Amino acid sequence: MTPDDRRAQLLALGVETLAERSIDDLTIDAMAERAEVSRALLFHYFGSKEGLHHAVVLAARDGMLHATEPREDLAPLDRLEDTLDRMVGFVRSHRGTFHALVRGASSGDASVRELIDEARDVNAARIVAVFVELGEPDDGALRLVLRAWVAFAEELLVDGALGTAIPAEELVAMLVRSARAVVAAR
Amino acid sequence: MTPDDRRAQLLALGVETLAERSIDDLTIDAMAERAEVSRALLFHYFGSKEGLHHAVVLAARDGMLHATEPREDLAPLDRLEDTLDRMVGFVRSHRGTFHALVRGASSGDASVRELIDEARDVNAARIVAVFVELGEPDDGALRLVLRAWVAFAEELLVDGALGTAIPAEELVAMLVRSARAVVAAR
Repeated sequence: MTPDDRRAQLLALGVETLAERSIDDLTIDAMAERAEVSRALLFHYFGSKEGLHHAVVLAARDGMLHATEPREDLAPLDRLEDTLDRMVGFVRSHRGTFHALVRGASSGDASVRELIDEARDVNAARIVAVFVELGEPDDGALRLVLRAWVAFAEELLVDGALGTAIPAEELVAMLVRSARAVVAAR
Repeated sequence: MTPDDRRAQLLALGVETLAERSIDDLTIDAMAERAEVSRALLFHYFGSKEGLHHAVVLAARDGMLHATEPREDLAPLDRLEDTLDRMVGFVRSHRGTFHALVRGASSGDASVRELIDEARDVNAARIVAVFVELGEPDDGALRLVLRAWVAFAEELLVDGALGTAIPAEELVAMLVRSARAVVAAR
């Protein structure tokens, strides 16, 4: 294995850990034990506990953004529905990861919180693009309301996709309707 | 001054500090210097840095909930508008405090995050009560969508009430419309 492969393997294990437990439990010691590697190797790759957290949250976040990459060949509303459908799928198959990403705000580490804020920015830009293509003016009010809708969607996904047995298509339809509703009500 | 008065005074100073800087900066040392008291006295009142954080966030949170206590004598939609009007006022006059409360999730401390979650529960129960009185069935879908709307409102208040010069009445009207819209779209 190359050092890069090794690092990627450790990151994948970190993301897996994040899916099951709080980020506070993601320590160098716990990782060393779980990965059956030396603490020195982990310090070599990540520098510190903070470095490990940053790298793991970055990997989890980019996994989520990649898994929900909008299909630009679809018409705006179809694209929104398709993206949200994959988001519900991601949330349900990576339960703890999504929770950690949304509540990753719950990290005391400012650089980790920044990663989460960037993901929110990407998701807000994606939904803004849908409504601009649908003919809405690309202004402050649209951005304000859709950035807030991203927080709405995150909460609905944490509560609705993780806590309940609501069918995916109902959640997706509810999210699409709510986005259109808050845009119309802005 | 009685010990209780003394403690309340220290808490008020802590809330003031929270309005200006990150919770990470709210240390026993910084508080001792600012309050011109001994570190020993702060340890006596709060036990630890975590104890100080918990007590300060609790005081800030209860200040916010008290300042936005719904007026039960008003009809549901008037009450919602009145509550939100006071919320926008609170956010604007206690800028950093509200930000700290919403992003207080950003505390690495689980007991602090719990205080914030409880505030969200209170705000969700308040908005659910409005719509139940308006005749909506008090079921899982209503609660799901309105709890998510609380996250929407928090984000809109952080972005819209702090970052921009949107008049309070416009923000309030936008929040009322968005709540009705997501309820109708659920």
